[in-house]
Amino acid sequence: MSFHLTILGTGSATPVLTRHPTAHYLQIEQDGYLIDCGEGTQNQLLRYKLRITRLKYIFITHLHGDHYFGLIGLISTLNMHRRTEDLWLFGPKGLAEIITIQLKYSDTWLNFKLHFIETDTQKSYQLFENENITITTIPMIHRVECCGFLFREKPHKHKIAKEIMPSDLTIEQIKSLKDGKNVYYEDDSVKYDYKDYTIPSVKGKSYAFCSDSLYNEPIIDIIKNVDVLYHEATFLHELEARATFTCHTTAKQAGEMARKAEVGKLIIGHFSSRYKDLFPLLEEVRQEFPNSELAEDGMNFEI
Amino acid sequence: MSFHLTILGTGSATPVLTRHPTAHYLQIEQDGYLIDCGEGTQNQLLRYKLRITRLKYIFITHLHGDHYFGLIGLISTLNMHRRTEDLWLFGPKGLAEIITIQLKYSDTWLNFKLHFIETDTQKSYQLFENENITITTIPMIHRVECCGFLFREKPHKHKIAKEIMPSDLTIEQIKSLKDGKNVYYEDDSVKYDYKDYTIPSVKGKSYAFCSDSLYNEPIIDIIKNVDVLYHEATFLHELEARATFTCHTTAKQAGEMARKAEVGKLIIGHFSSRYKDLFPLLEEVRQEFPNSELAEDGMNFEI
Repeated sequence: MSFHLTILGTGSATPVLTRHPTAHYLQIEQDGYLIDCGEGTQNQLLRYKLRITRLKYIFITHLHGDHYFGLIGLISTLNMHRRTEDLWLFGPKGLAEIITIQLKYSDTWLNFKLHFIETDTQKSYQLFENENITITTIPMIHRVECCGFLFREKPHKHKIAKEIMPSDLTIEQIKSLKDGKNVYYEDDSVKYDYKDYTIPSVKGKSYAFCSDSLYNEPIIDIIKNVDVLYHEATFLHELEARATFTCHTTAKQAGEMARKAEVGKLIIGHFSSRYKDLFPLLEEVRQEFPNSELAEDGMNFEI
Repeated sequence: MSFHLTILGTGSATPVLTRHPTAHYLQIEQDGYLIDCGEGTQNQLLRYKLRITRLKYIFITHLHGDHYFGLIGLISTLNMHRRTEDLWLFGPKGLAEIITIQLKYSDTWLNFKLHFIETDTQKSYQLFENENITITTIPMIHRVECCGFLFREKPHKHKIAKEIMPSDLTIEQIKSLKDGKNVYYEDDSVKYDYKDYTIPSVKGKSYAFCSDSLYNEPIIDIIKNVDVLYHEATFLHELEARATFTCHTTAKQAGEMARKAEVGKLIIGHFSSRYKDLFPLLEEVRQEFPNSELAEDGMNFEI
């Protein structure tokens, strides 16, 4: 399954010209998923030629401006582009009210149905499911209600081992074997064990998005073994006190998190505007977890 | 008096990468005045090195997103920069509610006092006055409540003609002559006529900002003879029907307006995203009013 990530913004609250505020765009098969939508995100989508007609789902971690001030502009633009397909918007309490009041005063009537789904940021639960993926919330510890999101591809079907496939199988029975179910005789004894006639499926892809939060070990169980972890790393560890005070994570801590969760790859972002050169953050995180990368605006990853 | 205009955005509702949405920054003496604040305006202020600490007054013409979606981000950033000086925000009904609700959900407590002044967009009246200028509203005809703003430098004092100044004048009497008042004998007959002893003041500078509106001749009396008129010109006149339908002005109409109002210079902006090359708009407007210019992002004018 195609699972393509484009990073649209890597900055944090104070604006800098070199980094846009947070937004990640995931293209999974034909569907676009946007995670956070800082000011100017719609321009970033334009800049990187991502087709907003494919955008179906938007997930907002929390209501600090650098994570959602671009949302009302994007929704307005989708409407001007005469969108008619439904759009689903997931975020904390308050988001629906903020969007609705702005549509009201601009006398905007959407041509499409906008579904608001309020997140419960206090616990981890399955927020979303379609034929391709599930999305689970990841509670964050921040100054306002906040949660991250774990995108997980559904398990693939098993593949039939064609060269040894019995010739008397019906189409229904083949489907059962692919689904990991045995084929039975009428007396309920096993006729064909699916393990004997199929090749096990590969593990589904997974992507965890964690921003913004105090270093928070309890989420390790949730993000365990994900292919790619994006974790905020606003500060160098020398500013740990500042990170704690503002409920953020340091590069060292993000690396620790990745190591303890045994993830495949770590991407860090949400960099403080004080860092013009990000290399010290990369050095620091790699000391904890070598397979780490700095997020850059416009960077692409195939998960 | 220094009266410096920087144009921060020249686009209209549909975003394009080459033009930011509407925002004009006026620096008059030590005070910064922002007119409209489309998405990304705070980045434009950064890009053109305009010091946001000087910003004291913000004027929003109407609540379409391309004119104000950047406001909440700018206010948040001013707060992060530890501003303590008051900020005055002028705009139509709804603006205070929109800003307040977003501050509430982000749990933001401003370090500075934010004054909301609701505009009455239906009539022309003096909205603001300080020692340097007056600001008068200009009613626009648009799909939502909308008004433009006329910035007018207060009349200068008359200059004393030193070489012929009578030696018996007191300081109070000199002030009177500068204010354009005569000096009288005790029997109320004129002793010194201010016109004989002073050089008339130069006319105060003026700048009128008109966006967005249907072509609207009744405002000509308000903007008569201004030094610089900014007028929206969203479309070429071949799209007059579209302009009328969407309550916008064509380049030809903007030129007519400038000619009839006998302004010094016309700047047009708020260009539709359909125009990659703006030269046809310039040609069209100059046929009506030769001293016209196209607004460009980052352009500076000394009025």
